[in-house]
Amino acid sequence: MEFNYLYLIDLLGTFVFAISGIRLASGKNLDWFGAYIVGLVTAIGGGTLRDILLNTTPFWMLDAKYVVTTGVGLVAALLFKQKLFSWGKTLFLFDTIGLGMFCIVGLVKSYEAGFPPWVCIIMGTITGSVGGVVRDLILNEIPLLFRKDIYATACILGGLIYFACIQITPLLPWAGLISVGMIITIRILAVRYHIHFPVLRDL
Amino acid sequence: MEFNYLYLIDLLGTFVFAISGIRLASGKNLDWFGAYIVGLVTAIGGGTLRDILLNTTPFWMLDAKYVVTTGVGLVAALLFKQKLFSWGKTLFLFDTIGLGMFCIVGLVKSYEAGFPPWVCIIMGTITGSVGGVVRDLILNEIPLLFRKDIYATACILGGLIYFACIQITPLLPWAGLISVGMIITIRILAVRYHIHFPVLRDL
Amino acid sequence: MEFNYLYLIDLLGTFVFAISGIRLASGKNLDWFGAYIVGLVTAIGGGTLRDILLNTTPFWMLDAKYVVTTGVGLVAALLFKQKLFSWGKTLFLFDTIGLGMFCIVGLVKSYEAGFPPWVCIIMGTITGSVGGVVRDLILNEIPLLFRKDIYATACILGGLIYFACIQITPLLPWAGLISVGMIITIRILAVRYHIHFPVLRDL
Repeated sequence: MEFNYLYLIDLLGTFVFAISGIRLASGKNLDWFGAYIVGLVTAIGGGTLRDILLNTTPFWMLDAKYVVTTGVGLVAALLFKQKLFSWGKTLFLFDTIGLGMFCIVGLVKSYEAGFPPWVCIIMGTITGSVGGVVRDLILNEIPLLFRKDIYATACILGGLIYFACIQITPLLPWAGLISVGMIITIRILAVRYHIHFPVLRDL
Repeated sequence: MEFNYLYLIDLLGTFVFAISGIRLASGKNLDWFGAYIVGLVTAIGGGTLRDILLNTTPFWMLDAKYVVTTGVGLVAALLFKQKLFSWGKTLFLFDTIGLGMFCIVGLVKSYEAGFPPWVCIIMGTITGSVGGVVRDLILNEIPLLFRKDIYATACILGGLIYFACIQITPLLPWAGLISVGMIITIRILAVRYHIHFPVLRDL
Repeated sequence: MEFNYLYLIDLLGTFVFAISGIRLASGKNLDWFGAYIVGLVTAIGGGTLRDILLNTTPFWMLDAKYVVTTGVGLVAALLFKQKLFSWGKTLFLFDTIGLGMFCIVGLVKSYEAGFPPWVCIIMGTITGSVGGVVRDLILNEIPLLFRKDIYATACILGGLIYFACIQITPLLPWAGLISVGMIITIRILAVRYHIHFPVLRDL
């Protein structure tokens, strides 16, 4: 892959996902190594499950940049402890951009593997959200995703928009940009206006 | 697959497994989306692990009916909350029928993939029981299966009966029916007469 | 595979890993079947994830000895409860030997599959340590590996030594023996002198 904006966003997404794992790991008595693994699993977990389901070699085994970027994330977290909180809004933005891009990358990879749109939308959603689920399971919490979803629904809607776009026009790159933009917009609006599904009461 | 009784049992098994996940999810502060995912994982988790181990594409990626049926399960759970409890016995029966059928379907699929009987029996047991294990792990409980097994042993015995049957007679359909029937019988008897393994005391 | 010392170490490693799972399972109200499964997952979990990532059939599906050895482990744990504690040091030694061998076996298998050294080192580490992680997750504890690593770092260092060795000399068997020996030495020294990574403080 040449050095371009996609490459940069991919690195940034990995970095921010890793940071989110490392932050949650802190205060749980994990050592540095454990924090690194939790960060790595958060960053690559979704894409790994997608590639296992697609029966292909996991993406991070073909390019060392994900393993390295997570290491940079750990060093950054150790060096800039205090700053990490004041960077909250910036991190949220990158996290959301990463979500959108991971999701559409996973969707397109599945579509190219020959799966129908509904499978691709699920694969995109898995790519964007399963890393955070595994992070929560490792740290012994009921996954946030299941309690107050701010991830998966945005991915599903973004995926629907993607397939609506390529139905209308064959200009693929634009479909990707539009749907990534929609995922980012939906998630930001959902967080800002506290939009979420109702809680399931006792059955 | 043509519309026949196997198709109907497959749908019913999926539906009832999904309901069991959704019921356990309620009262844990999950939102509707989270409950749907827990229901889906309960219904398809075992078969997905089996297909990953068999190195083949997971069954639910080739047919949307499992994803749709789980959605119907969620709607049913939301509409008929009160009823779900009075339906307890009927749900238990379908759950047991689903267990038996999932198990033998998994076993036969593995046998057709060329694996020896002992691997097929394990694959059948995984198909029938791993969904419930993942459900419990997601909801942060030690899996019921490991504390008071009412699933896996029935699957293992049913699998042994299956291979005993096809040893005696080449009439495959009957072997399937007999072993599914035995799994159902064993589980019902185990629940009725509180038959279970001893608990492992402190070592 | 012919009966030789590698075969014996493989069996011993499986046996001791299984015992470590069964011991941790006791006192958690698991029944015998649950304890067997936890033992089995501890023994084969790492190699299974490695084989899934390498997109190949999990090793234990090709040879019944792992499933059988875990059963022997359960019987031994039930028969020699008291002894198991006085055997603590012997078990630790076998556990460490098993770790070293599992790690290098996983590394070599990945290298033969054509992956670059850094992937092979990760695969070796996964082979040696993921079984214990899954054991802890099933039993609802934050994995020991992440809190006080005494496993993974030894594997990573052993893997680096392996590739340093085959760089210097093409005598492969010696590289394996040396790196297994180094993993064992590093782990014993780390436990004896309480060497570990710092804990990650609150971020």
